[in-house]
Amino acid sequence: MNKTPVFFISDSTGITAKTLGSSVLSQFEDVEFDPVVLPYIDDVTKASQLVVRINEAHHHTGMRPIIFDTVVNPEINAILRKADALHFDILNQYLKPLEAELGRQSSYTVGMAHGGTDNDEYKDRINAVHFAMENDDGGRTRQYDKADVILVGVSRCGKTPTSLYLALQFGIYAANYPITEDDFDDLESIGIPKALKPFKKKIVGLTIDAERLSFIRNERKSGSRYASIRQCEYEVNEVESMYRQMGIDYISTTDVSIEEIAAKVLAAAGIERT
Amino acid sequence: MNKTPVFFISDSTGITAKTLGSSVLSQFEDVEFDPVVLPYIDDVTKASQLVVRINEAHHHTGMRPIIFDTVVNPEINAILRKADALHFDILNQYLKPLEAELGRQSSYTVGMAHGGTDNDEYKDRINAVHFAMENDDGGRTRQYDKADVILVGVSRCGKTPTSLYLALQFGIYAANYPITEDDFDDLESIGIPKALKPFKKKIVGLTIDAERLSFIRNERKSGSRYASIRQCEYEVNEVESMYRQMGIDYISTTDVSIEEIAAKVLAAAGIERT
Repeated sequence: MNKTPVFFISDSTGITAKTLGSSVLSQFEDVEFDPVVLPYIDDVTKASQLVVRINEAHHHTGMRPIIFDTVVNPEINAILRKADALHFDILNQYLKPLEAELGRQSSYTVGMAHGGTDNDEYKDRINAVHFAMENDDGGRTRQYDKADVILVGVSRCGKTPTSLYLALQFGIYAANYPITEDDFDDLESIGIPKALKPFKKKIVGLTIDAERLSFIRNERKSGSRYASIRQCEYEVNEVESMYRQMGIDYISTTDVSIEEIAAKVLAAAGIERT
Repeated sequence: MNKTPVFFISDSTGITAKTLGSSVLSQFEDVEFDPVVLPYIDDVTKASQLVVRINEAHHHTGMRPIIFDTVVNPEINAILRKADALHFDILNQYLKPLEAELGRQSSYTVGMAHGGTDNDEYKDRINAVHFAMENDDGGRTRQYDKADVILVGVSRCGKTPTSLYLALQFGIYAANYPITEDDFDDLESIGIPKALKPFKKKIVGLTIDAERLSFIRNERKSGSRYASIRQCEYEVNEVESMYRQMGIDYISTTDVSIEEIAAKVLAAAGIERT
């Protein structure tokens, strides 16, 4: 059976169409989709070419395509409607009721979404990215006083991608600190690595199944003691018992997407996104 | 005039509600909103408490709140409907027509969206993040043969956040290389820095207004020659003339969000997202 072709179409980046559409389609677990994101469809020529492509996809697969569309321009939208597809016009489903509610016309302008071009917000996110990189992996510059959150966990449990995601998406200052064997003496004596002690309230722990960790580490250093299941079990046990003893909230990253880990970290740290 | 309270509500991360809702609201430029994301509203107790909070926001501001909701559970949704608000039930607007089209019931399960927990996709994204970090700023390890795209540009024009965004969101292997004065000799003789020469097809250029660049650099090294408007103008001119001479596509990052820069880089590199 062929896959159902899916087109996420936008006159801007396509992020809204893709995010919303993927979310909706994920509710159909046993259907196979063949998605593509088509950003910057911002003139009638591009739209007409796209209709040809969509109809060819229909013909080629025998499956009627699905379109998620955030194109604001009515002329371009009218052309896209000519494609033989199940068509969701995302923005217009929302704009009309909002216009009634707010008593204003929407601007119907292109590319207003995903602003972040507001200079302050943009600067915050860029600065947060640089903060995350400088404070990655217990880095030399430990500006933990400036951190919104400090992620801790064993090597390769997901700290770095999560820190960067928090920075890029939300402008959150996220440092991360790897718990290594060097820290185990501190764990025995003071319950927590010395460098983290003054910042306990900002800490969120990450953990991971030892088997999964061993798999990940083996990809990097195959056959090493570092990657052995025995070492991974030992480290994970030590770290989890530290979390419990110190009353640190912790999150498993096993089979959890970066988006979800990040959302759970914010919840654990009591940070509300706006 | 008070701001209109906006609630992005989800039984999962809230990403879909926030992304879609922000995009729609951005069409109302002259309305001020006070948004908050409320993830993991996954039981009736949390939902009931939230209804109280929403109604208090109404009472407190005198503005009827707006709700964007991706909660799948009908029982929780019914409780949220009791809030006096303009309520958009995002998933259900799409699920019913899709069920008819596909001839299947949707799973109505929670947290299926933003998968990325598919082991291969997850691994790709994590590996891409590590690749971006190792190949940041012309780093020591230049694995340009493995790169999907190589971003070039002057210092602080937005290469690093864009590379990381491409890695995190799309699993794209993005290296970045800063054009510095050390490279200007190469520009004169061979038109392009030597290290980049074999990889010209993968290069996408970034540029930025000299004034904006000077502002950004002054935040980091105030009053330096590096941050002076004169130096910034010189570097930007050199780099832009290199792009033109070498036929390299380039993108201005001035007042453009990271999401948009990333989308434009993919378009310039001819990479289609799926």
